[in-house]
Amino acid sequence: MLMECRPLLSEARCEPVIAGTVLDQDGKQLPTQMPGERALTLYLDKREIVTLMSLGQLPEALVLGYLRNQRLVENLRDVASIQVDWQVGAAAITTLDGDGGERCNDLLRRRTVTAGCGQGTQFGNALERLTPLRDDGFRVARSTLFALIDRVRQLDTVYKRSGAVHGCVLAAGSRILHHVEDIGRHNAVDSISGLMWMEGEAGSDKLFYTTGRLTSEMVIKVVEMGIPVLVSRSGTTEMGLDVARQCGVTLIGRARNERFMVFNGAERIDFAA
Amino acid sequence: MLMECRPLLSEARCEPVIAGTVLDQDGKQLPTQMPGERALTLYLDKREIVTLMSLGQLPEALVLGYLRNQRLVENLRDVASIQVDWQVGAAAITTLDGDGGERCNDLLRRRTVTAGCGQGTQFGNALERLTPLRDDGFRVARSTLFALIDRVRQLDTVYKRSGAVHGCVLAAGSRILHHVEDIGRHNAVDSISGLMWMEGEAGSDKLFYTTGRLTSEMVIKVVEMGIPVLVSRSGTTEMGLDVARQCGVTLIGRARNERFMVFNGAERIDFAA
Repeated sequence: MLMECRPLLSEARCEPVIAGTVLDQDGKQLPTQMPGERALTLYLDKREIVTLMSLGQLPEALVLGYLRNQRLVENLRDVASIQVDWQVGAAAITTLDGDGGERCNDLLRRRTVTAGCGQGTQFGNALERLTPLRDDGFRVARSTLFALIDRVRQLDTVYKRSGAVHGCVLAAGSRILHHVEDIGRHNAVDSISGLMWMEGEAGSDKLFYTTGRLTSEMVIKVVEMGIPVLVSRSGTTEMGLDVARQCGVTLIGRARNERFMVFNGAERIDFAA
Repeated sequence: MLMECRPLLSEARCEPVIAGTVLDQDGKQLPTQMPGERALTLYLDKREIVTLMSLGQLPEALVLGYLRNQRLVENLRDVASIQVDWQVGAAAITTLDGDGGERCNDLLRRRTVTAGCGQGTQFGNALERLTPLRDDGFRVARSTLFALIDRVRQLDTVYKRSGAVHGCVLAAGSRILHHVEDIGRHNAVDSISGLMWMEGEAGSDKLFYTTGRLTSEMVIKVVEMGIPVLVSRSGTTEMGLDVARQCGVTLIGRARNERFMVFNGAERIDFAA
């Protein structure tokens, strides 16, 4: 339940950047920094479901977002507790009905390894379950997009210190509500989804920014969060665009330096503003 | 068997780039190109095992590499045939003993969702099964690395036309033997693994280049292919470095424009040459 999840949030953070030494192309020693990477194995009502590799900054939000996006838990109130223990790299999730393990078995029967950068996994058949977003009149000004893109650029990030991570942002207009980085961009998205769930935050008037590509499973996750506008500094794939069209998502790519491309849903953008 | 796999290779290629139209930041129409993305569901002895999202350029090599890297098939000669049908998005794999589906069930009991960009999946516990690479005296000159990095830069790529894909290269010195791009970088790696398997190519005197980050599962795959040197234009994560140390992989990151960083295994590099 809400009160039992929240207190854990800040306690189990890990240091995201590790210092090390490398040799450069001349064989000279150089100090360097790299992102920390920790294995977190999720046990849902004692059933092992998955091991996520993560920076470990918001493990409980990651766990909740993962359970939400995989539809392993339907409502936040069904989650009794989440206990993260980095000593053993485990997150123990208990549900009120104690039936989480059984639901897993049902869903595991059909796995889809999705595009992403790796071979992402989604339980069940995500596309079939999607409810397209309606156009409820939400609009965003070009100047707001420019301002958001510029604010994201100015963030103090793990990426700037160490590279090799992806970042996601949930925004209200150009105001950044959440910024999460992780080794896998799906972990970053899932963590934001978990934060939104805990805070009862609606997606319908929000924008979502990702440093990653606009692949189908990224668009699917945004639809599941009910967010109408997805922005990336990268491009889209054919299926990413396809899902955006089917589900009514405004898809904006190659966004940087007061430039962007609108792949779908331009009606939500006020170019004059 | 070899003779039954090979003829399928060139027949099932898909067009990797799709033309489309987008709006720019001023609302003006622009032509654009994006990578094609197709779902390929693998059936191993009639058991559905996974759906891969792919550019579809080398589907049989991808299937073989996937089966090899997931250890769903131990020897190439165990594979009787692979039939790819893009009309239905299916690859039917038959093994000689017909027991592939059963092996899947065993391996599915333990899944690890790895870092990557998405949440990659590896059947079983890859790390435990790894055999560290021995130092058999293989060395590479700095000038060779510079030459390889420059050749990779000059390749005619889907990435240059459409963005949003990852590329991998297998090289002998600075000579490029295979270059594969795909939506997911793991598909690109798996395809190269499949090509090496079909051609009976040893990894011990080769270099592997990836546009993606040096995460643990990328290093694991290189170890499984027996390749001692892994090069990326991106950085490494903590676990990527950890696996490289445990398994004796020379790990080179941030490689571009006659610069690179050696994270591990500098003894294989001749800096003077």
